[in-house]
Amino acid sequence: MSLKNFFEPGSVAVIGASREPGKLGHEILRNIVEAGFRGKLYPINPKADEILGLKCHPSIKDVPENVDLAVVTVPARFVPGVISDCGEKGVGAAIVISGGFKETGGAGMELERQLVEVAQGAGIRVVGPNCQGVNSAYAGLCASWPLIRAKGPISVISQSGTILAALGCWAEDEGIGVSKLVALGNKSDVDETELLEYLTDDATTKVIALYIEGVRDGRKFMEVARTAVGKKPVAVLKGGRTAKGAEAVLSHTRSLTGTDAVFDAAFKQAGIIRAAGVEELYDLCKGFALLPPPDGKNIVIITSSGGCGILATDACEEAGLNVVELPAWVKDALKEKLPPECILRNPLDLTGSATSQMYDEALAALGAAEGVHSILVIVGDPMPGIAEVITKHFKQGKTLVPVMLGGGEIEAVERAKLRSNGIPVYQSQTRAARVVAAMVRYRPTSGL
Amino acid sequence: MSLKNFFEPGSVAVIGASREPGKLGHEILRNIVEAGFRGKLYPINPKADEILGLKCHPSIKDVPENVDLAVVTVPARFVPGVISDCGEKGVGAAIVISGGFKETGGAGMELERQLVEVAQGAGIRVVGPNCQGVNSAYAGLCASWPLIRAKGPISVISQSGTILAALGCWAEDEGIGVSKLVALGNKSDVDETELLEYLTDDATTKVIALYIEGVRDGRKFMEVARTAVGKKPVAVLKGGRTAKGAEAVLSHTRSLTGTDAVFDAAFKQAGIIRAAGVEELYDLCKGFALLPPPDGKNIVIITSSGGCGILATDACEEAGLNVVELPAWVKDALKEKLPPECILRNPLDLTGSATSQMYDEALAALGAAEGVHSILVIVGDPMPGIAEVITKHFKQGKTLVPVMLGGGEIEAVERAKLRSNGIPVYQSQTRAARVVAAMVRYRPTSGL
Repeated sequence: MSLKNFFEPGSVAVIGASREPGKLGHEILRNIVEAGFRGKLYPINPKADEILGLKCHPSIKDVPENVDLAVVTVPARFVPGVISDCGEKGVGAAIVISGGFKETGGAGMELERQLVEVAQGAGIRVVGPNCQGVNSAYAGLCASWPLIRAKGPISVISQSGTILAALGCWAEDEGIGVSKLVALGNKSDVDETELLEYLTDDATTKVIALYIEGVRDGRKFMEVARTAVGKKPVAVLKGGRTAKGAEAVLSHTRSLTGTDAVFDAAFKQAGIIRAAGVEELYDLCKGFALLPPPDGKNIVIITSSGGCGILATDACEEAGLNVVELPAWVKDALKEKLPPECILRNPLDLTGSATSQMYDEALAALGAAEGVHSILVIVGDPMPGIAEVITKHFKQGKTLVPVMLGGGEIEAVERAKLRSNGIPVYQSQTRAARVVAAMVRYRPTSGL
Repeated sequence: MSLKNFFEPGSVAVIGASREPGKLGHEILRNIVEAGFRGKLYPINPKADEILGLKCHPSIKDVPENVDLAVVTVPARFVPGVISDCGEKGVGAAIVISGGFKETGGAGMELERQLVEVAQGAGIRVVGPNCQGVNSAYAGLCASWPLIRAKGPISVISQSGTILAALGCWAEDEGIGVSKLVALGNKSDVDETELLEYLTDDATTKVIALYIEGVRDGRKFMEVARTAVGKKPVAVLKGGRTAKGAEAVLSHTRSLTGTDAVFDAAFKQAGIIRAAGVEELYDLCKGFALLPPPDGKNIVIITSSGGCGILATDACEEAGLNVVELPAWVKDALKEKLPPECILRNPLDLTGSATSQMYDEALAALGAAEGVHSILVIVGDPMPGIAEVITKHFKQGKTLVPVMLGGGEIEAVERAKLRSNGIPVYQSQTRAARVVAAMVRYRPTSGL
């Protein structure tokens, strides 16, 4: 059965809804309300009449209308019974937040077995248990925490709730937003592969990020991943690279990780981009979501800071990009337009006396240069008006990547303007270079 | 002659002071005023009576009292004359901000030669030309930009003004602060080696960061570096690692970089810690400035997020740390104190239901464990009260390194509390692990 009930339910019940702020059953209900869910919402709690102004029912079976999705926060021992009630009610999908299942061993293993059996018998699809829930931002459905409301092009599938939340929060803080966030938890039913397949054809998802510790069915995963990568970029962060990390994985989600070399080869073969850490995973999402794809690996660096230009050159070369010679006609054109202290090579150093107008001239010439596939725009000094200049040239379609290192008020203002124009800003040339290199390597089969 | 006049002058003249906001001659004067310089301050401008409420003099020679330091912002062609006036006045040191010297070739080379000749003849020490100035925060002397006022343990010597400013701004934003920031510019006189020597014995400098593209005298630098490293940690970011980066260095500061392998070996031999990028250079400064040094490489990871615990394990192992087994007595003690869902190994996974009290128990047991040299404290969920708990155990002296990934209000509050208690917070386990590993490798000869 399709996973649509998780992301576009018409009606949702929160089983274990609580009146007490701080309790998960309260926080999740409130997050769904505050995210602006427009479907019907039913708190289920036998001891309350009303929570957050919503009428309570003692059991899901008492809800007078259909329920598409149940969000379950009751203690583990009650979950199989609750799922059984959901079955009687005809609920299509359940997100089981509660922990105390397979991850605890012993009695928890048995409870999870029961949960799966009941759900399968009733045809209920399950995300979790032991997970941080699902956020479907375009549906206003934050059945997770913290509250993340910003809608955008990034979707995340994660075996870690914290990593899921971090990516979501960063995307919200930068005004980029998310489409779907899914915490896998114990993967008793729905797993990374099925979610990847679903997101492949999800219209509001432009880039997919995965945090995984293992995959359930390697062959199926590879097949789905190849199709996904053909349609949109997929970036992965894999926990358990080292021997001790793999041991920790075994304790966390009881996944067998396999050797890292096997995963690495498989990711490469499927065209999945591998991130070295959480921040890089986010950097990649941001780039793929917002930057036009570069047509090749020739990059030009424009900078007001000689030092940053040099570090950018190192970073680009190390990432496999090609810091090309400035085309002769560009040099000639810029010689006329720029003051004599500018260094007309690549990196193009506008020096500390750079102005927005000088960036404008440089971007105009380089924007028209055919052999230049992307431009790193390092703004190393307070530069009033630079956001407007970058935005104008960004719209011409060439891959422009702004980097702003420092602090200061002027920079904060310009950075905010770029963000609100949908242009990503990176904090260092190293991080930006790695993103551009990944975008160059990415080859969709169907165009972006 | 000592460099003291640059950092602790009793009186300063700004030659080229301007009434116009936005002009460097105005910004620098204002920054010195706003940073709270308590010595005498003389704007020099033949066309103004008063700037920012300070009486102007037409020439430095008209200043009625002694001047220790001149900050020069007039166009390059006037600089040799200005320095000559400074000589007549008996000025001890000059920071030449103005560009248009060696870096432009041709006539600029000749101007720089004149500048050096005049300064040497008059016994004036020179920082610059073509530089972003000097900030001596404890003296309230921000002869640079942007305005950075927060006093703290980090000093930076940088061949790039932008990198200098970025490090300073980040340290100010996080409430850590700086002692001395020096932009090298063209190094016509004062260079990285002499500054490193000065900072070695500077009481308010606890850690020294360098951004360099080359060194003037390798042998002398190594000698000074070895002494410096014996007294306090020195971290370096070197521009021009790649062949194309080295070419860019030649255009920027006309330094010959030598091959990167030579630098790398030299840094290792001197005990200098090498940073991979600007952010890592800052991370290292922050760690060395604020964390107690670990006694060895055994690390325990405490986490509320299984996934982050695994990524931390990978990062620690890859950085050369030892993710040790939990001592048996610690396991026994924690079995009594923690709920059964906690995973009593390393990483110590308190799970998503972790509370500050649980961190308190874990830190109490591990704080007393002899074979555990450092503890990574990953707070992966909103955790009211965690700052207080971490602060309490931090004060016991073991190396505790808090990591907070996400966003959300509760985390922002706890993060701010930790910062105001002088405890550094890292945004990812990967960055934190690299800092701890560098601190383990660092071996001062004189104790910290």
